[in-house]
Amino acid sequence: MKKDKISSAVIRRLPRYYRHLDELHRKGTVRISSGALAKSMGLTASQIRQDLSCFGGFGQQGYGYNVERLRGEVADILGMNRAYTAVILGAGNLGRALIENFPFQANGFVLVAAFDVDPALVGARLGGVPIYHTRALESYLHEHRVNVGVLTVPGSVAVESARRLANGGVEGIWNFTNIEIPQQEIGKVRVESVHFADSLLTLSYMISEERL
Amino acid sequence: MKKDKISSAVIRRLPRYYRHLDELHRKGTVRISSGALAKSMGLTASQIRQDLSCFGGFGQQGYGYNVERLRGEVADILGMNRAYTAVILGAGNLGRALIENFPFQANGFVLVAAFDVDPALVGARLGGVPIYHTRALESYLHEHRVNVGVLTVPGSVAVESARRLANGGVEGIWNFTNIEIPQQEIGKVRVESVHFADSLLTLSYMISEERL
Repeated sequence: MKKDKISSAVIRRLPRYYRHLDELHRKGTVRISSGALAKSMGLTASQIRQDLSCFGGFGQQGYGYNVERLRGEVADILGMNRAYTAVILGAGNLGRALIENFPFQANGFVLVAAFDVDPALVGARLGGVPIYHTRALESYLHEHRVNVGVLTVPGSVAVESARRLANGGVEGIWNFTNIEIPQQEIGKVRVESVHFADSLLTLSYMISEERL
Repeated sequence: MKKDKISSAVIRRLPRYYRHLDELHRKGTVRISSGALAKSMGLTASQIRQDLSCFGGFGQQGYGYNVERLRGEVADILGMNRAYTAVILGAGNLGRALIENFPFQANGFVLVAAFDVDPALVGARLGGVPIYHTRALESYLHEHRVNVGVLTVPGSVAVESARRLANGGVEGIWNFTNIEIPQQEIGKVRVESVHFADSLLTLSYMISEERL
């Protein structure tokens, strides 16, 4: 696998490539031209060719891309074949939505445990995932290899929870709180935040723009 | 307000500007230099100056930006002062998480109603928001001005739900399903999707990258 420096713009597009290729594969598409892939993704064919050449995409002049092979290549680069494990901190509405409905496995992750302080939840299982008391987090992280912590706690305990995950050895934090986690609190741990508000405000801009 | 063409990269950064400026304002910061704002946002000072000049940002040489004024300017551009209304389709875990915890009002929106097919939910109120049966959607949209529909339904009914919202006259759809809504199904309605998987895969890439 060729893999030199991939620009952050290409990286941001990689999951979208994966999503589209996976859908094509499920529909039974064997080959696709850069033009057709571009159209379905709202990009230009030359951008597709340029992006995919960054990681040695298997396009062949006049032939297009082998969908399954390209999907595998993208999955590889995204680390989807590493069986990463994840725990969720906070089994409120959002935590439960992720536990019960988000396809961790289809994205290469195994959700191994959830943690909450609510006595009504502790000891139960949700979608097959055990819920432990948050005070057991440190011992759990000590005994299990956990790559990613998912933060669905109230904002008031977001930074403290992130610090505990970092101290426990996770490599990444998937942050759903509206709090920015200061990097100095968590050392080298990588953070990816889902900012609902940013997304809604982008939509707000788009519909305002329409009215001008 | 100056407002010519704003590039889509700048638009994507606007909500982040708003978020940072709002936090600075709440902390009591009156003025901030482009350098300090850049540092807190992980951008360069020249990028900040360039972005903000796109919409006539009020920077003054040697003085910096007036935080409250700039925040107001950004809010204006984002359409946050237009009292947009929103309805939620689907009051499952994710829908309830948004109804109960997402600060619609702080983002310039009023959440006016939710719709679900579950008889146990219909007729109830969640966080002050009434829940109606989904079959009442058309008549509700006919009688009320609704700008945005939030899609938190199962993927299997995502496209059909989007079409009903579009036929009912909404201007934007905030899509939380993992389905891409085909533009031809919804005419001129704008869609903004929150793709959880794309975000997790970006994190997966980042931690894989760390290991190389």
